[in-house]
Amino acid sequence: MKALFVVCDGMADRPVEELGRKTPLQVAETPNMDALAGKGITGIVDPVAPGVPPGSDTANMALLGYDPYEHYTGRGGLEALGVGLDLAPTDVAFRCNFATLSPSGLVEDRRAGRIKSQHAAQLAEALRGVAEEVGSEFGIRVEFVPTVEHRAVVVLRGEGLSRAVSDTDPGEAGRPVKPCAPLDGTPEARRTAQLVNALSERFREVLEAHPLNKELPKPANAVLFRGAGTVPRLKPLGELYGIRGACISAVALIRGVCRAAGLELLDVPGATGSYDTDLNAKFSWAVRALDGGADFVFLHVKATDLASHDHAVDKKVELIERIDDALGSALNALDLGGDVYVLVTADHTTSLRTGNHEGDPVPVALAGPEVRPDRVDRFDEMSCASGGLCRLRGKDLMPILMNLLGRVKKFGF
Amino acid sequence: MKALFVVCDGMADRPVEELGRKTPLQVAETPNMDALAGKGITGIVDPVAPGVPPGSDTANMALLGYDPYEHYTGRGGLEALGVGLDLAPTDVAFRCNFATLSPSGLVEDRRAGRIKSQHAAQLAEALRGVAEEVGSEFGIRVEFVPTVEHRAVVVLRGEGLSRAVSDTDPGEAGRPVKPCAPLDGTPEARRTAQLVNALSERFREVLEAHPLNKELPKPANAVLFRGAGTVPRLKPLGELYGIRGACISAVALIRGVCRAAGLELLDVPGATGSYDTDLNAKFSWAVRALDGGADFVFLHVKATDLASHDHAVDKKVELIERIDDALGSALNALDLGGDVYVLVTADHTTSLRTGNHEGDPVPVALAGPEVRPDRVDRFDEMSCASGGLCRLRGKDLMPILMNLLGRVKKFGF
Repeated sequence: MKALFVVCDGMADRPVEELGRKTPLQVAETPNMDALAGKGITGIVDPVAPGVPPGSDTANMALLGYDPYEHYTGRGGLEALGVGLDLAPTDVAFRCNFATLSPSGLVEDRRAGRIKSQHAAQLAEALRGVAEEVGSEFGIRVEFVPTVEHRAVVVLRGEGLSRAVSDTDPGEAGRPVKPCAPLDGTPEARRTAQLVNALSERFREVLEAHPLNKELPKPANAVLFRGAGTVPRLKPLGELYGIRGACISAVALIRGVCRAAGLELLDVPGATGSYDTDLNAKFSWAVRALDGGADFVFLHVKATDLASHDHAVDKKVELIERIDDALGSALNALDLGGDVYVLVTADHTTSLRTGNHEGDPVPVALAGPEVRPDRVDRFDEMSCASGGLCRLRGKDLMPILMNLLGRVKKFGF
Repeated sequence: MKALFVVCDGMADRPVEELGRKTPLQVAETPNMDALAGKGITGIVDPVAPGVPPGSDTANMALLGYDPYEHYTGRGGLEALGVGLDLAPTDVAFRCNFATLSPSGLVEDRRAGRIKSQHAAQLAEALRGVAEEVGSEFGIRVEFVPTVEHRAVVVLRGEGLSRAVSDTDPGEAGRPVKPCAPLDGTPEARRTAQLVNALSERFREVLEAHPLNKELPKPANAVLFRGAGTVPRLKPLGELYGIRGACISAVALIRGVCRAAGLELLDVPGATGSYDTDLNAKFSWAVRALDGGADFVFLHVKATDLASHDHAVDKKVELIERIDDALGSALNALDLGGDVYVLVTADHTTSLRTGNHEGDPVPVALAGPEVRPDRVDRFDEMSCASGGLCRLRGKDLMPILMNLLGRVKKFGF
């Protein structure tokens, strides 16, 4: 028995005016998701709790079976894990951005014109020395790791640090960089905030003076810090359920969550985490992994969420149809009547109108040899609300799926 | 207002190949359960939590309204209560089996050929002296109480004991008896394990030499220990809700749970906890108890669970129909429109295919004068999933039922 767990980021939505007050899932042609709903059991899921808009980190943590209220320790640690860094329990990591500051010190572009990765790498090289120097004043080792385009991870390594510090990223253009402030009264938080502020200032000096920035249309003359986090201590899925599992995702944060849960990260060529991602490649790699001995594949598609953030109504509908198509090929290749369970859901609602994550529940469909089928045969937010799973929490899905795989220990005699 | 709470052990199931991918409850003719669903309100219940296979002890504890994650203290204490023993809070009890060991020391039969009760009693008599002797070396009083056939309870009475010790029962034939090991680092656990191992060894010597064992086809030459437990501290239902309640069950473990909850144990002639149990007697005793002043009767039927453990598809369907029949007589005798509520559910799913307890939810139907009826008129796992109770936890049922009886205190002003 094995399972494919498909998560479409922000796929769930609210009724959209432009779609005749229907949701993208209601409007899109999704014969394969509908067939899955028809064969299987459906329901709705509050990723973290009713009415609470989840982050992608907390939502996916919950979908993997971990209560985020118990286990979430900030974004930075997960982001660091996701780009392949190893963190000690005391290390604190940040998700960082190269950004463009105006001469008056306001953030002009939070992404420095989506600076090219090779340019970011050059600038990062120049930050290495000062990072070390500032860190050593605090007795802390500082690592600056550029990832894709404007994105980077900063890890502070050592004792006496705290993740209870605020962001320097003001969150929108036109505002000044914020000072990093301690969020509790501990000396660790105060010290960490001081270190971040020192880094922030010295990075600015070095970047301001860098020759590359004279050439760039939008100079990357600052680094914004956000999402201070440590690495969460999750009991790996392999230990909890005795499974061998893999993750297919192009998003560092999601890869980090999956790595924290002990899943192997697969690198699928063409998986970009963006509109141009190769969905067929992702689904066929999932099938190959399951055929090759994996008990569990967690497949995450980011693009649906981007469409909502971009308020791109038609794009979202089109993406859902493309996902459905790729899912169809996978369903053909897998033996749903035999030894495979397939679950499709979203990690949260992202509203096309607000462009934000919202706290509405998401639909779920689960098919496979021994589920109890219900009468729902459409996969969307409203249809699934009358399904046989009723309304669950995100963290409930994994035990349900793992129990179908015969992997959950009995409680009691 | 009074209530009959009917629990059919392991009655819920998954779709079964031999039944055309339907569950036994879907296939069985159950006009009375269906009528109850039709008149009343239905739903599905996760006995302990979604996807978690419950033991019979944790499940029935939850159905009586106690959160097993908070209150469960192992099987042994409940088993001891169920056979009529009284336990101090510090006493540790075990569920034990007479077993047959091969000359090479492997467990040949975990039930010693289901040795007759009178033979077991004879052997137990012979163990009394050595139990006392070994116990006194540890400053502990040891009681060995044979119950039915191969089953027995051992109680260790005294201070400085722990229930955090492992079983000596290997769980299947063909394996050696396991040494009892401490499950935590406390001196209490170490001492308890030593005592169990000493008892285990000395019991073997005495049984090996016993003349009766020369005659038995499968000599009962060992005692297997499992399920170390203390007595749970439950606030009695009488105190929680001001009710007088009774339990009808032939299973020591369930009787123990009910006794811990403060229910009076009724001894119904012909109730065996097996296929041949007198269902009509059980239901008519329940009616009589309710007529005689009981506010609440908890009626438990074991046989459905046995059928699943035995992979006996037709047997399970037949048993469900027999239960339905006996329930029908009770429904005729009780005034559902007047002052009686009747609730029917299962304590867990037991799969005919796997033969194991599974983590799927169970159906529930509740009828009586003031429930809010829904549109469901079939009592089975899928139909009840669209019922008006939606999806609940096992521990939620008692407050719901007791509130209908006017027995739940307001929270707040």
